[in-house]
Amino acid sequence: MAWEDVAAEKKSRIDGSIPQEWLIKGLQGDDNVMDYPARSGILSPEELQLTNSSAVDLVNRMAAGELTSVSVTTAFCKRAAIAHQTVNCCHEFFPDVALARAKELDDYFEKTKKPIGPLHGLPISLKDQFRIKGLETTMGYVGWIGKYDTEDSVLVALLHKAGAVFYVKTSVPQTLMTGETFNNINGRTVNPRNKSWSCGGSSGGEGALVSFRGSIIGVGTDIGGSIRIPSAFNFLYGLRPSHGRLPYAGMANSMEGQETIHSVCGPLCHSIQDMKLFVTSVLAEKPWNHDSKVVPLPWRQTEEDEVKAKIKSGDLVLGFYNCDGNVTPHPPVLRAVQTVVDQVKGAGHTVVPWEPYRHPRIVDLTNMIYGSDGGTDVLTAMGQSGEPPIPNIDQLLHPSSSKKVDMNQLWDVQLEKWNIQREYLSRIREFEVKTGKELDAIIAPVTATAAIRHNQLRYYGYSTVTNFLDFSSVVVPVTFADKSIDNKRGDFQPLTDIDKEVQAEYDPEAYHGAPVAIQVIGRRLTEEKVMAIAEEIGRLLGNTVVS
Amino acid sequence: MAWEDVAAEKKSRIDGSIPQEWLIKGLQGDDNVMDYPARSGILSPEELQLTNSSAVDLVNRMAAGELTSVSVTTAFCKRAAIAHQTVNCCHEFFPDVALARAKELDDYFEKTKKPIGPLHGLPISLKDQFRIKGLETTMGYVGWIGKYDTEDSVLVALLHKAGAVFYVKTSVPQTLMTGETFNNINGRTVNPRNKSWSCGGSSGGEGALVSFRGSIIGVGTDIGGSIRIPSAFNFLYGLRPSHGRLPYAGMANSMEGQETIHSVCGPLCHSIQDMKLFVTSVLAEKPWNHDSKVVPLPWRQTEEDEVKAKIKSGDLVLGFYNCDGNVTPHPPVLRAVQTVVDQVKGAGHTVVPWEPYRHPRIVDLTNMIYGSDGGTDVLTAMGQSGEPPIPNIDQLLHPSSSKKVDMNQLWDVQLEKWNIQREYLSRIREFEVKTGKELDAIIAPVTATAAIRHNQLRYYGYSTVTNFLDFSSVVVPVTFADKSIDNKRGDFQPLTDIDKEVQAEYDPEAYHGAPVAIQVIGRRLTEEKVMAIAEEIGRLLGNTVVS
Repeated sequence: MAWEDVAAEKKSRIDGSIPQEWLIKGLQGDDNVMDYPARSGILSPEELQLTNSSAVDLVNRMAAGELTSVSVTTAFCKRAAIAHQTVNCCHEFFPDVALARAKELDDYFEKTKKPIGPLHGLPISLKDQFRIKGLETTMGYVGWIGKYDTEDSVLVALLHKAGAVFYVKTSVPQTLMTGETFNNINGRTVNPRNKSWSCGGSSGGEGALVSFRGSIIGVGTDIGGSIRIPSAFNFLYGLRPSHGRLPYAGMANSMEGQETIHSVCGPLCHSIQDMKLFVTSVLAEKPWNHDSKVVPLPWRQTEEDEVKAKIKSGDLVLGFYNCDGNVTPHPPVLRAVQTVVDQVKGAGHTVVPWEPYRHPRIVDLTNMIYGSDGGTDVLTAMGQSGEPPIPNIDQLLHPSSSKKVDMNQLWDVQLEKWNIQREYLSRIREFEVKTGKELDAIIAPVTATAAIRHNQLRYYGYSTVTNFLDFSSVVVPVTFADKSIDNKRGDFQPLTDIDKEVQAEYDPEAYHGAPVAIQVIGRRLTEEKVMAIAEEIGRLLGNTVVS
Repeated sequence: MAWEDVAAEKKSRIDGSIPQEWLIKGLQGDDNVMDYPARSGILSPEELQLTNSSAVDLVNRMAAGELTSVSVTTAFCKRAAIAHQTVNCCHEFFPDVALARAKELDDYFEKTKKPIGPLHGLPISLKDQFRIKGLETTMGYVGWIGKYDTEDSVLVALLHKAGAVFYVKTSVPQTLMTGETFNNINGRTVNPRNKSWSCGGSSGGEGALVSFRGSIIGVGTDIGGSIRIPSAFNFLYGLRPSHGRLPYAGMANSMEGQETIHSVCGPLCHSIQDMKLFVTSVLAEKPWNHDSKVVPLPWRQTEEDEVKAKIKSGDLVLGFYNCDGNVTPHPPVLRAVQTVVDQVKGAGHTVVPWEPYRHPRIVDLTNMIYGSDGGTDVLTAMGQSGEPPIPNIDQLLHPSSSKKVDMNQLWDVQLEKWNIQREYLSRIREFEVKTGKELDAIIAPVTATAAIRHNQLRYYGYSTVTNFLDFSSVVVPVTFADKSIDNKRGDFQPLTDIDKEVQAEYDPEAYHGAPVAIQVIGRRLTEEKVMAIAEEIGRLLGNTVVS
């Protein structure tokens, strides 16, 4: 069978998984579909309210017996169904399985009067890279259609144990190695705030679905920004934990076994309180007993408490930068960084410029690592069906830019990486010696642009540097591009060719209203700390759980 | 200059670094040189006593002002000088520098009445892989002679900050990739209990020197047994921490940048109390702020306390094995394992057989990783001088056994490694589910033999499996081979060719008196726990700080 036919059959199975009664009628033609759930008439007012709530509120009410998992799961299934019909974000949708599981949990609660775990009854969405026994994980590869998983990924098994309900697996770009979401099975996933904008990637289906509140917590992965870019483009909080904090074992992936820069799992959600619910629930399962790469670090409440004391007394010390020396961010991003700096300073904390250390070299090394097998792995996966690479990947696989790295070259790169990581730590120590204060975190752009127009994402340096350094990072949504203040710069002097290209894409009219975020970056394995700082920045910005 | 001349010049510099008054006279011809310090007349009775003490005792007395660092340092310098003359264990010896440093520390104490740190004034020996500013790190390569270090390794800097005094860097085999200590500069380092036996390797100089009490705590490295083999062969305690517990940054190494199996630093010493002094002193310096690969895990007293409570109540649960499915240990090693099992059971704890999971495959994968650049790196280092490989390495570099691994092959190996690590954790969980009890540690051989005769070390599977799994491991000295009970097995049926070869080496007469050890293996990053269990096993065996 031709790959097009295999893909079309799968696509029709995805679309066909939506029950008739959840098909939207009479709604179309809008660029912004955020109000479709309310306008569709498919969700009851109570269901709308449930999906507009917070995960913490939902689990609390289910644990108190005030809500059933069936009602909550039904609401999210409906809203996810609408999301898929409008932004095309699902690879697997299985409401029947989900509702059966929800019923089991309700029965358990009925019998024991106790929740089964901290996530009892909560629907959680998963990027189509997590394996669930009995389902396909195509990851957007046509050649992987028809292969059904025989085992859950470790994180899936632990979330299940904690009481989560799974109902959807979300779209990704072919190969995962790009920040927009397009593949030869499902086509393109778009941004629910404006279909002309990307939802980001590679956890793009999650970004779109969570933003649309078709999910309250979505789980993505990030090797170069794949949690943070969709979080930024969809006005969400997103956590890229350091490698070894949350379990990754048993996932599908491109370039499996590549360990120079590790992909990590993390949540996309609407608030830090929900993020904390997710992280503490997973850590409570002692993931280090299941995945050898997880460090035995339970949630350290003392770390959170210490930074919260600083927050209370106005004693935070943050660095910030708005340019990495390679590419100048678009005006809305510069404004977002400045807004955060002003707010944090305004609250009495210390915020000082941080000089990015060798970021251009870091970007080069990172690209060398991503391409270190010369594309062999992803080409093999494509070869299984004969599908072509999507355009973003086709560029990357160009022979001139992708040559297999030799073992001793790899070791040289790995040693240079370690040395740069150490030098970065030296810079932090020097700062601390000079100021006599601990550097709590660094504020930086996530991308050079607001939620980007399709096919325009060309530069990943702002996100990849964090992966290279393996620093913990939390995305905080800040603002929206505004044509009345974010003017195109007339005096722009490009630093590099790629800088010129990226800046040329800025168009105040086209980007008006596009979400903009920053990231809060902390040292390795400092999730408690960066999450608390991110929460405070959100509070200062007036972010609340928007309904 | 021919490499032989360069090497000879360096060798004469090493030997020449010993002051005239510390040259031994009239002592020679003995196989066992352990009593040479007492017989030499070079150390005063008080100096003999100091060197026969414990590190904890010495730092306590220096911190109380009862001892000076100059007196302690002088004593160890003298004893190290005797060690070098008898077992040939030094690559760098610099008593003048050490005594100047000791004097500074004494002056500091005099002025402040306080120790500078937890290791105030304590001499610590370093494997010739640690860099000290201003000294050479030849690591046994002739081609590295004459290159003087411009920076301290991170661990060296932190030990210095904690108050340590450096006075000697100890011998290693060329390349570090073998368990006996021989190189083209220094020749062979031998075992002070019997010059016909190896001191082990690659931290062999440390094993010999610490055993001889020319050092009280020595620091080695271990990628396949290089701390544990010398510990075992010299009746010492040795710690191979999991990767990321102690800092390794800034070390010299073979195959730098190879990160599939990491080399780690750790102490060789005479007791767990001294080991704990070392580890807690390093962790107190927050090494994670200096080396990006170190996990932010301070010493967890609660972990130690929990296992000590189990020890007190007879509630330890240990697994054990005495054969890995590849090679059967020699009779003295089998007896050592059984002795420990009997002692621990006798104290009321639970000890049950542990089935080694896929160890032969682990050994094959490990060898593939060690050889993954086809020897390019070590051959390049040898090429700098033109020196030939030492015999142990010559075998490894044989073209048929060493072929450069391709990037995608490496990824396959890395993925298989992760999967086997996970399966190992599954086995532990299954054990725990079946028994309802936590598995606290596993008792196993370190090597298949007691301290081995020269050129006979052929199998590393018992040590390398721990590196592959990245489990924490502590060597506990157990007994000495005894020709009257450790009979050659008449009924021996070899499992493999290598098993046959290894067993054929056993000769009760030749091995009579050779040290034998076991290792206590715990999950990743469980140093507190395995150290406490090792201490208890030592106590049950009646090991004390022998003087």
